[in-house]
Amino acid sequence: MKYAIGVDFGTESGRAVLVEVATGKELATAIHPYSHGVIDECLPESKVQLDPDWALQDPEDYIRTFQNTIPAVLKQSGIDPLDVIGVGIDFTACTMLPVKADGTPLCTLSEFRQHPHAWVKLWKHHAAQPEADQINETARKRGEKWLDRYGGKISSEWFFSKTLQILNEAPEIYHAAGRLIEAADWVVWQLTGVETRNSCTAGYKAIWSKRDGFPSQDYFASLHPQLATVVADKLSTDIRPVGQRAGGLTQQAAQWTGLKPGTAVAIANVDAHVAVPAATVIEPGRMVMIMGTSTCDMVLGAEEHIVPGMCGYVEDGIVPGYFGYEAGQSCVGDHFAWFVENCVPASYEQEAKERGMDIHQLLEEKAARLAVGESGLLALDWWNGNRSVLVDVDLTGLLIGATLATKPEEIYRALIEATAYGKRIIIETFQKNGVPIHELVACGGLPEKNKLLMQIYADVTGLPIRVSASKQTPALGSAMFGAVAAGRKLGGYDSIYDAAKEMAHLKDEMYAPNPENREVYEKLYAEYILLHDYFGRGSNDVMKRLKQIRAEAKKTLTVSAGEPHA
Amino acid sequence: MKYAIGVDFGTESGRAVLVEVATGKELATAIHPYSHGVIDECLPESKVQLDPDWALQDPEDYIRTFQNTIPAVLKQSGIDPLDVIGVGIDFTACTMLPVKADGTPLCTLSEFRQHPHAWVKLWKHHAAQPEADQINETARKRGEKWLDRYGGKISSEWFFSKTLQILNEAPEIYHAAGRLIEAADWVVWQLTGVETRNSCTAGYKAIWSKRDGFPSQDYFASLHPQLATVVADKLSTDIRPVGQRAGGLTQQAAQWTGLKPGTAVAIANVDAHVAVPAATVIEPGRMVMIMGTSTCDMVLGAEEHIVPGMCGYVEDGIVPGYFGYEAGQSCVGDHFAWFVENCVPASYEQEAKERGMDIHQLLEEKAARLAVGESGLLALDWWNGNRSVLVDVDLTGLLIGATLATKPEEIYRALIEATAYGKRIIIETFQKNGVPIHELVACGGLPEKNKLLMQIYADVTGLPIRVSASKQTPALGSAMFGAVAAGRKLGGYDSIYDAAKEMAHLKDEMYAPNPENREVYEKLYAEYILLHDYFGRGSNDVMKRLKQIRAEAKKTLTVSAGEPHA
Repeated sequence: MKYAIGVDFGTESGRAVLVEVATGKELATAIHPYSHGVIDECLPESKVQLDPDWALQDPEDYIRTFQNTIPAVLKQSGIDPLDVIGVGIDFTACTMLPVKADGTPLCTLSEFRQHPHAWVKLWKHHAAQPEADQINETARKRGEKWLDRYGGKISSEWFFSKTLQILNEAPEIYHAAGRLIEAADWVVWQLTGVETRNSCTAGYKAIWSKRDGFPSQDYFASLHPQLATVVADKLSTDIRPVGQRAGGLTQQAAQWTGLKPGTAVAIANVDAHVAVPAATVIEPGRMVMIMGTSTCDMVLGAEEHIVPGMCGYVEDGIVPGYFGYEAGQSCVGDHFAWFVENCVPASYEQEAKERGMDIHQLLEEKAARLAVGESGLLALDWWNGNRSVLVDVDLTGLLIGATLATKPEEIYRALIEATAYGKRIIIETFQKNGVPIHELVACGGLPEKNKLLMQIYADVTGLPIRVSASKQTPALGSAMFGAVAAGRKLGGYDSIYDAAKEMAHLKDEMYAPNPENREVYEKLYAEYILLHDYFGRGSNDVMKRLKQIRAEAKKTLTVSAGEPHA
Repeated sequence: MKYAIGVDFGTESGRAVLVEVATGKELATAIHPYSHGVIDECLPESKVQLDPDWALQDPEDYIRTFQNTIPAVLKQSGIDPLDVIGVGIDFTACTMLPVKADGTPLCTLSEFRQHPHAWVKLWKHHAAQPEADQINETARKRGEKWLDRYGGKISSEWFFSKTLQILNEAPEIYHAAGRLIEAADWVVWQLTGVETRNSCTAGYKAIWSKRDGFPSQDYFASLHPQLATVVADKLSTDIRPVGQRAGGLTQQAAQWTGLKPGTAVAIANVDAHVAVPAATVIEPGRMVMIMGTSTCDMVLGAEEHIVPGMCGYVEDGIVPGYFGYEAGQSCVGDHFAWFVENCVPASYEQEAKERGMDIHQLLEEKAARLAVGESGLLALDWWNGNRSVLVDVDLTGLLIGATLATKPEEIYRALIEATAYGKRIIIETFQKNGVPIHELVACGGLPEKNKLLMQIYADVTGLPIRVSASKQTPALGSAMFGAVAAGRKLGGYDSIYDAAKEMAHLKDEMYAPNPENREVYEKLYAEYILLHDYFGRGSNDVMKRLKQIRAEAKKTLTVSAGEPHA
């Protein structure tokens, strides 16, 4: 029996899973919480304060993840480490860091240790918004074609926003860096001793495409003269498609992990994207929804299409041979968590307690008793802005239809339904633009927890929904890519397609659209669209004006607090 | 020293207040909870079930109110009953009943005791909606001019809606009734032995005006052939302006109350309207807001104007010599109560408990810390439809601007602000149509409880707000009218103007508009108006369509519950 290990680097911790190559059976799991977690107040071992919106990490936490979790899964499973044929990793993205030419992170050098820009910028580092604004405005002015690939907007979270922030605010760090690199690629470098760059982060986060490469020197120069040669100076144009072998474990990495030197290591990957084959999806037509606090929607396409309002599409970005399309909803699990924290009365908390239920369970039970349309409520799911298809962070939440008889479970259900309508818009936008979708596959935390939500999604979208069998699809996906990196001769697979057929599974249950519910949801969806377009497409920009008034009020407050009144 | 007694008949109880005529000082108060309260499930002493939307009362509860409260205030105060010179009453309206020609309520007769239509129909009896619809539609078709006086709509709560329901559903009751009469007038009849009819209920609730009288026989005939002569058969065209003497206490009423026979009794009045002079308002320009679960707004005008979307205006309807204009907001205190019951998290309840505060107090404290506009939220205050100025019960509530950072106190404040914006629309509609307003006077339960709300109203409307000194303005107002019924010669006053100058008082405090807050509220109000007109004036009737979908869903549910599925 052969085994592969997938290591999934999350926001707060890293997780390793040891998997049977023949079946995908998950034999052991180990989690390593990062010692420094998310660094967002001050740097470790110093009192250097960080501005709000900053979010850093310590690269040594990633090495410790290898050192702790891989030995742990080996021990737990009791297997022979020699039977582990491959390792794959996936990471949050864009999570990037400046390193020396030999891979040494700048933040590990004493001269830079107290410099915030020397550390890893985590995906949710949001301090590069001015740089993102400049990137977008300059691209629009110059008519850069690649902007359309990203729904017309590059995020402040992405690679060049962060890079430009380093150059603007800490040119000494920028110049000291031999490489600027995704943490995903950096950990693979640490395992193999070889620098590689993966097509997934390059494509989705660093404006690279297989056909056109990176943006031009001219474009970079128009952002900042010293950025003109960023690709040649700090990156690599040797972008490798996911599914390839990056190299073999070094002696040192073998010591860290207890695996044998030379064990195959896969090209790095991204958590959401690696979940797609792990959810059995290796062909067009079936959209994977990775549902957590927010949702990533991913679908494969045989052809290249510009789909308005998407997060991006990348050739070979999810599995080789297909265009990987990504869309997103920025407020899903977060939405329900907000509601439970801020809007559920004490009497409900009490009832849940008495009945030994989670409050979400209680709300789900009560909401499930409602007929479709019975609440009279409709919401726009924009509590955290809208990613797809409007790509507008300044949109805000709306609830309409409330009466004095409105109950908490009705609002809760309306919020779920709002995210389902948002999903349907994404699906229809794909479909209208040449990317077919005929089935949904759900994975992530939410589908396990909330069956009502799954049924509502089926009823609203009119599509059947299957659920991934694994509760840790990213780690499973990484293990699958590890098995592919090893190849068939060593007991693995020659492609992710072969691996997915054996190692990825769905649960038996299926959520089928209920025709009666669909009929009512058609009417409600029509109302949603009307409000979506009225508030989201410029007919009434009240949400933005309210945000403006709000920003002014907060500014006044700050001034008032700072300066004593005359 | 001379005294007057005001008796205020509320929904659940009656209240008497004994007042010093010279000063308006309230010496004693007594409350009598009605034995049968609101009868909305089944008739007393029988198992006759009532349909939903029904709300009845027992007229004997009103007599018991006199018997219990007046002796109680006499005893409490220790004054000589001979020094009580007058009694006034006010009532909820339209609260009406069928009686014999001698005033005997039909429901007290054994033959009719088990007939729901024989009982008092309380103001909130809502089962006459089909009749109200017919009244409105017929009036519109015939171009009845009086419809404009009522903002274009007669309510299901009003006199002829209820009358027509009796005729439609229980012609035997209709024909057995010698009179159909407001409970307000009926209790005065019981005190004085003389039937009188007051201008306030006739004008506001029974489509009467001093200049045009009641609608024509032709109009009534077009509703129902037997209704043609309703005015001649069941009512009276002798409508007496408020402020007059109805008569003197009968021997029997003197026995009930402990007052001397012949004590002056005022023409009946309505709770909200009688509060106006009790809040010191006896001239145009100062609008009285009676703020409770809903709000009545009343203002006097020297001239007759059609003001769109009002509840009605009546010459001599509030004080003689002026047109009394009434507008209303259907969801004010109810709004906040709904929020507290359904949307306040357990952690807030806990904090309020630990700090020994009412939850409303806690929310007020937290909301008061917010700068104007800081929440980014805006609401439409239509949780219970909109009375003025849209006159549309099918409108529903809206909240816009929510984010994941939105806190309960921000929503709470947005709901308060929404009612303030609604108030401003009412004020501006009056002003634009020739009814000037330059100051607001608040009374009722809310102004005492919520200072933040008062300040917000001042800031949003830009008008100074004063607060009535009395916590029971209706009862005080009734006592004032009692003193006027007695007249100056007996130690009272010759007019309500004279009475108001001595007996009605304001608190010293004034809520003055804060110029900085006003500036921000101007912007927010502009946004409110935009949404108000978009959703309220037909651009997008989504609220009505959602109500329609909701009604269908409930119908399906009922059918499903009633008929087992095949």
